[in-house]
Amino acid sequence: MARNTFDFSGLLRTDLPAAATPWTGFPVHNFVGGHNDQASIPVDLLSAAVTRALQRDGKFLANYSLHTGPLGYRPLREFLVRKLHASAGIECDADQVLIVSGSLQALDLINRILVAPGDTVITEQMTYGAALTRLARCGANVVGVPVDADGLDTAALARTLERLAREGVRPKYIYTIPTVQNPTGTMMSMARRRELLALAVQYELPIVEDECYCDLTWTGQRLPALYALAQDDRVIHIGSFSKTIASGLRLGYLVADWPIQRRLLSVKGDGGCGGLEQLALAEFCTSHFDQHLPMVRKNLHAKLQILIDALRREFGAAARFAEPLGGIFLWVELPDTVDTSRLTELAAQQGIAINPGIEWCTDAELGRRHIRICYAHPSEPEIRAGIAALARLCREQFKLFDRPSAIEQRAA
Amino acid sequence: MARNTFDFSGLLRTDLPAAATPWTGFPVHNFVGGHNDQASIPVDLLSAAVTRALQRDGKFLANYSLHTGPLGYRPLREFLVRKLHASAGIECDADQVLIVSGSLQALDLINRILVAPGDTVITEQMTYGAALTRLARCGANVVGVPVDADGLDTAALARTLERLAREGVRPKYIYTIPTVQNPTGTMMSMARRRELLALAVQYELPIVEDECYCDLTWTGQRLPALYALAQDDRVIHIGSFSKTIASGLRLGYLVADWPIQRRLLSVKGDGGCGGLEQLALAEFCTSHFDQHLPMVRKNLHAKLQILIDALRREFGAAARFAEPLGGIFLWVELPDTVDTSRLTELAAQQGIAINPGIEWCTDAELGRRHIRICYAHPSEPEIRAGIAALARLCREQFKLFDRPSAIEQRAA
Repeated sequence: MARNTFDFSGLLRTDLPAAATPWTGFPVHNFVGGHNDQASIPVDLLSAAVTRALQRDGKFLANYSLHTGPLGYRPLREFLVRKLHASAGIECDADQVLIVSGSLQALDLINRILVAPGDTVITEQMTYGAALTRLARCGANVVGVPVDADGLDTAALARTLERLAREGVRPKYIYTIPTVQNPTGTMMSMARRRELLALAVQYELPIVEDECYCDLTWTGQRLPALYALAQDDRVIHIGSFSKTIASGLRLGYLVADWPIQRRLLSVKGDGGCGGLEQLALAEFCTSHFDQHLPMVRKNLHAKLQILIDALRREFGAAARFAEPLGGIFLWVELPDTVDTSRLTELAAQQGIAINPGIEWCTDAELGRRHIRICYAHPSEPEIRAGIAALARLCREQFKLFDRPSAIEQRAA
Repeated sequence: MARNTFDFSGLLRTDLPAAATPWTGFPVHNFVGGHNDQASIPVDLLSAAVTRALQRDGKFLANYSLHTGPLGYRPLREFLVRKLHASAGIECDADQVLIVSGSLQALDLINRILVAPGDTVITEQMTYGAALTRLARCGANVVGVPVDADGLDTAALARTLERLAREGVRPKYIYTIPTVQNPTGTMMSMARRRELLALAVQYELPIVEDECYCDLTWTGQRLPALYALAQDDRVIHIGSFSKTIASGLRLGYLVADWPIQRRLLSVKGDGGCGGLEQLALAEFCTSHFDQHLPMVRKNLHAKLQILIDALRREFGAAARFAEPLGGIFLWVELPDTVDTSRLTELAAQQGIAINPGIEWCTDAELGRRHIRICYAHPSEPEIRAGIAALARLCREQFKLFDRPSAIEQRAA
């Protein structure tokens, strides 16, 4: 219905991000976001689980937060206590586990209680883009520390902390992704974990440990969580079901001791996370989580091999990367001649979505040389066609190659 | 595991609300919150709906926001387009409907784009407590306008707006609950709706219309929404499934035209609302919503009659109230001798949870005389026993009656 337009412009806050653009469907070649492999969604088992859970506890949907309090549905928290003990060495009880609507809500809650404009937060120099966006919206001063094949570079961190201390700055927290680091796919070594904790003690800093990918190592193995290694309750541990079960289910978790948990709870204010999803997930995970993971890992690893094969065929030596130890993304360095932010724009026009490195880096120059390619969602033909199209763009727009792409050679 | 305690105190923001206290279960007499009648939760139909929906669209749980964009699952939005047209006279299309995780998220998003510290917002003098809490956290200056049996008092609103204009203040929006006003249970008359819209035009103000209870009028009838009556896109319309289906499902909706919707979307940033809940609700509502409502209304109306009967027996003329036209709460005025904030504290110690009026009022004196009693969740015996216990407290602590309560008379 055509109606007059009311002018909101004088009423809007002046600090808003850019307005959204209309959604026109997913890009043809969708190499961004934490989307899953469709075939790995355990639809039938989820369906059976939700049926059982509803029959038993469905009446508790009558309550905000079901009937087990604002931390979330207790059977799901109890599953997590067992899982975190078995896989990450974490000893906690269900009252230390908060169910959140994805790891982003966990980050929002943490920032809400700790970060005021002008505060400093330390992250890895290459890190989760949305964490950087959120910190920027809080007005935080983000200081990046290099990350290498062994994870966060603790020697560099020591120098950074020393410098900040000299300047009288006490950061609010150190944000790290120890296991399957986003975007580099590396794993923090045991020595680095201990060094990081020692530095946190020395400088009296909390650590926020984001472990959204920790269940997706190819070997199925991981090192003990920082939360498990710490001698005190300075570590806040974050995890998610988005990458292991389904990103469309908005459920993650946060482990912290009560002094912090009570602060996070007081600002959560969302009436609890989705009750039906918590019921379904608790039932599914208790019966099937351990059997489900190997299938997910296998499918992802196979897709990674396809992506790597496609990159080698299409880009040859021009695409440099370290093979990730797990997860859903590959962090690719391109030659200096390619401005990856410009490449991202041009690619979007051709239906190819990639993450420009600059959104995943605290260092613009480092970001400009990199792209992040998520491989969980596209099918094998989509991966191959998308990478070929990306290579074509690099040749046409940035004169990256002196020869046609492999696919074009075959077509010729 | 006993561990050392890290001292977070120097790191926390200085503007935090009071920390949460450990959850010790629901109170015995639970007269607060938007909890539902357990027997009205359509567990079997929801279970069948989620099974069907998963079989058809479960694979789309692989995507953030499923596969129909950040506004939410399109079949659910399309159901809402039909529902809002049929019940509220709203003409909109699915692109004007945003699925949110409850009406609170809608309010948070609206405040996020419009309200900066020091801004003025107009509400009804008696209004939704969480709306007031949220505005206070935004640093807003809330100006209350009286509400009576015909809803928001537009003559008083005119005087308020005139005064504010003289002071050079342009409020950011007018917040109103037209249908089954919270807490008074009244309905804004057609004349008042038109007067409110005329004033909004005169003073160039948007209106936020919160219609969380509009499906729960005893007659099943309601007047056209302000959104439907407006000549332009100044009205943002909010609704919820929390009171009609289940509060444990965290789903509500917001209707607005694109110039505002694009702003709301840009700050939503939650990776979409729960996909499984959207799938389930779209399927359930399309088949069963219209049949479900009369049962819910009937159960609620019966509980209201029990509550009124209990109040008359236990409080007699000391409890004054107007019978609400629908909904889940009764707004009760007690004699001056009762400080309802103190009564709320004392009641909590005895396992009786009520809302003190002061949390639901912009005017402290008005609030001090009132309590809000939610009757959807407790059973008939719980309602009767809870009201008897409340009356006993009023007699013992505030010398409200000169005779024993009805239950005590029978026991004697």
